Amino acid sequence: GRKVLIVYAHQEPRSFNGSLKRVAVEELSKQGCSVTVSDLYAMQFEPRATRNDIVGCLHNSDEFNYGVETWEAYKRGALSNDLMEEQKKVQEADLLIFQFPLYWFSMPAIMKGWMDRVLVQGFAHEFPNCYDSGLLKDKLALFSFTTGGSKEMYTKGGISGDIRYLLWPMQHGIMHFCGVKVLVPHICFAPECVSEEKRKEMLIAWAQRLKTLWKEEPINCSPEWYFK
Amino acid sequence: GRKVLIVYAHQEPRSFNGSLKRVAVEELSKQGCSVTVSDLYAMQFEPRATRNDIVGCLHNSDEFNYGVETWEAYKRGALSNDLMEEQKKVQEADLLIFQFPLYWFSMPAIMKGWMDRVLVQGFAHEFPNCYDSGLLKDKLALFSFTTGGSKEMYTKGGISGDIRYLLWPMQHGIMHFCGVKVLVPHICFAPECVSEEKRKEMLIAWAQRLKTLWKEEPINCSPEWYFK
Repeated sequence: GRKVLIVYAHQEPRSFNGSLKRVAVEELSKQGCSVTVSDLYAMQFEPRATRNDIVGCLHNSDEFNYGVETWEAYKRGALSNDLMEEQKKVQEADLLIFQFPLYWFSMPAIMKGWMDRVLVQGFAHEFPNCYDSGLLKDKLALFSFTTGGSKEMYTKGGISGDIRYLLWPMQHGIMHFCGVKVLVPHICFAPECVSEEKRKEMLIAWAQRLKTLWKEEPINCSPEWYFK
Repeated sequence: GRKVLIVYAHQEPRSFNGSLKRVAVEELSKQGCSVTVSDLYAMQFEPRATRNDIVGCLHNSDEFNYGVETWEAYKRGALSNDLMEEQKKVQEADLLIFQFPLYWFSMPAIMKGWMDRVLVQGFAHEFPNCYDSGLLKDKLALFSFTTGGSKEMYTKGGISGDIRYLLWPMQHGIMHFCGVKVLVPHICFAPECVSEEKRKEMLIAWAQRLKTLWKEEPINCSPEWYFK
């Protein structure tokens, strides 16, 4: 059975994001996958990258450098417990699903904090092991999110530009950098502006896609996919 | 005298980001500007968008919707104090400078949380007042940041792609959406990899730029600037 980690960022279980998360847990479990959910708001996950992420003495306490300190702490097993637990979940997972409402053309800060703090050097990448040789290669990622704006706004000629433009930092800058292969994102446009009927169809479409997810090919995560 | 708000996200005052911030405070004060700094880590700024941002009863407590609740709370003056204080600083500023180290092709989570929580509907935008007619029009913004990777990596043919690709969500998706005009970003590439001498030159170049900042024209914040 394959292992899936769902990193989920919504405050309200009754939200449409909550429903998308539940659909994924149900469908993937039905397939025999083992599914873990990191429910970031429920965990009160800490988004701030601070000295508290390192247990014990610092490598250089004269000038705090978060990247260097977490790298050193990772090597000696001295990262804070919440980080080590998330890293364990990532390590065991074949697929990472990020489920969130789009906030300001990106993920909510609580999820950005998960990226900033969990994917430390030594664990997720370590030069020259980045991009295709990143340390999390052989894993897959899928960004599943909802928008406020309509599909028409997020087109090449639309006021918000092609939705792919805003996927570059998340898919290429984070996941590809760590070697993770990226599946086509799953985007539910403006669920708050459509009928209950249409929202149900969106949930069914998500469940449907998940049925054949493991047969999908990752995208070619290069500028052409995003900006051509 | 013009008013400047510097939103600053680095843990360490002795860092290069700390120096860039100090240079800006000194140079702009020398010009007669009134400069305010929001030092996010020092303030232990809360990045998580939660129910705590609303004082008193919710508009709809059956299903918590952060966007709706903060919009309603803004209108009745019931946002939490830390948000109202930041909004007051924004309201008074002619120029917003965001100073940070690039984390994962974007800003650190603590700064993303500032965007998520401070720029609420009603205050920064309110349909149809978005983009060119956003509620913060007549203000300027400037993203000033440091990178880990070199300038060569952040080029069209480079492994990390043109640096402008990653500016789209921050400059267009956030600032332009709120009507703020964007000045050319100030980017210090890989300060940790160069000599002390070169770092000093970078600080001088920043001070130099600030001397004539008010004569600069904003960029044309459209897809052509980012992806042409």
